[in-house]
Amino acid sequence: MTVIGLGLIGGSMAVDLKRRGFASQVLGVEADPVNAAAAEKIGLVDEVLPFAEGVCRGEIIVLAVPVGEAVRMLPEILDMFGGKGSGTEEARENPGKIVIDVCSTKSSLVRAAEGHPMRGRYVSTHPMAGTEYSGPWAAMSGMFDGKACVICDSAKSGQDALDVIEKMYDVLNMRTIRMDASNHDMHAAYVSHISHVTSFALALTVLKQERSDRHIFDLASGGFSSTVRLAKSNADMWVPILTQNRDNVLDVIDTYMEEMTAFRDAIATEDGARIRELIGEANRIRRIIK
Amino acid sequence: MTVIGLGLIGGSMAVDLKRRGFASQVLGVEADPVNAAAAEKIGLVDEVLPFAEGVCRGEIIVLAVPVGEAVRMLPEILDMFGGKGSGTEEARENPGKIVIDVCSTKSSLVRAAEGHPMRGRYVSTHPMAGTEYSGPWAAMSGMFDGKACVICDSAKSGQDALDVIEKMYDVLNMRTIRMDASNHDMHAAYVSHISHVTSFALALTVLKQERSDRHIFDLASGGFSSTVRLAKSNADMWVPILTQNRDNVLDVIDTYMEEMTAFRDAIATEDGARIRELIGEANRIRRIIK
Repeated sequence: MTVIGLGLIGGSMAVDLKRRGFASQVLGVEADPVNAAAAEKIGLVDEVLPFAEGVCRGEIIVLAVPVGEAVRMLPEILDMFGGKGSGTEEARENPGKIVIDVCSTKSSLVRAAEGHPMRGRYVSTHPMAGTEYSGPWAAMSGMFDGKACVICDSAKSGQDALDVIEKMYDVLNMRTIRMDASNHDMHAAYVSHISHVTSFALALTVLKQERSDRHIFDLASGGFSSTVRLAKSNADMWVPILTQNRDNVLDVIDTYMEEMTAFRDAIATEDGARIRELIGEANRIRRIIK
Repeated sequence: MTVIGLGLIGGSMAVDLKRRGFASQVLGVEADPVNAAAAEKIGLVDEVLPFAEGVCRGEIIVLAVPVGEAVRMLPEILDMFGGKGSGTEEARENPGKIVIDVCSTKSSLVRAAEGHPMRGRYVSTHPMAGTEYSGPWAAMSGMFDGKACVICDSAKSGQDALDVIEKMYDVLNMRTIRMDASNHDMHAAYVSHISHVTSFALALTVLKQERSDRHIFDLASGGFSSTVRLAKSNADMWVPILTQNRDNVLDVIDTYMEEMTAFRDAIATEDGARIRELIGEANRIRRIIK
């Protein structure tokens, strides 16, 4: 198999799929020379190759680059599988090749593959796992264990391709859930994308006010650290997510601002009963998030 | 010593101060009968006593109740130390008694003790540690280790009282920092109180949209869980904090809403360069929060 993009997600997949015997050889493609050298040195992959060679030599291609680049690469890769009519020699040679992506927004990717003669060889997936760190040095074994992976618009993928990819996520100990891409993007805006925006805004707020790093460090108890943790997340990954999932993210921000305003008003008027009511409603999250 | 309020903070202090030999006996006062019975059963304290008896028998009194109640109890306790003129018999009998509070806002407490003849026996402290859980069953050993404790308006406390309390926090492995109460409350609004408000608002946003608990559970990766964790926090504790620290909290909310609006505008106009700039600034938090 070939992993394109040897960062947190791609690197972590490469490590466990090799270690757990799903792939006997894992090839890598990485545009950034520092990251490529680090990935080889750390031993995330067996070999780092140029893009075209990586796509040619892998049976399963994992696209683990930021979503903007993935949207550009996906049709190229499907073309290389032998598209433009499935009767070409290259297509006959590689009937079983599969490409998946692991991006956090799915609609733009599904659209990019729409109508391609090789559409059936593409499986759109979102393994919902990660940390706030990025790069090959952030990759780690076990990162996906016990988490959920969404597979989108599965009816458009070939059954054999789906079977292989389901098995792959099974090796990563992930539960797979099926959902259409537009539903995925809406839910992802609520349970993932908004958390990043709120953390970025929180970091900016505190950094602006607290000119002394020392004060933040001294006074930031566990609560603040966990809330602001996602503000360490990487712009390369998050700029395309927030722009590609724009409409959903704006909807969530607007709802969120209404809730913030409700708190603000209750605090401003010192309406203890109303604050208690809002906190009581928010506490319902206890039932869901352990 | 006597701990008044056997919840997360009081209970955790009781356990470690006894276990580490700072106190040979720890007495408890707890108004809630279920919590009192649980604290005794778990073994957080040696004995649970009524308020007046607990205050009489303890040499150090730790006020670990929500800040509203602490403001009411503090002058009462100082009175029991022999206030109303320090020449009373009771005061002569108990020259060394000390009362501290461990609340998250300090100005209202310092004001409540202002001018009291026994003011020197009060030390205003804020051990900056905790979890999102509450009650005696949430208490745990080691919770304070390595964290910071703020001591406010220390010039108003007797030197012997300060020495004892510094030693107590040393046993809890906390770094102590001195600060005046109004500065403390401003900084606490930035690095602690706002995180709770944003988490509550995030929980409300997601609960309102996602009618299916199952979806939230399935899709909430680690990022969302950590950001929303504080939304499990208890109203009894947080209603008085947010109202007593009203002006500071409102200032922070307003700055925070401006940052959220900056993100909203950049996303709405799909201004990738601006989003990248905002994320880049927010990433500076990496230097400070590990």
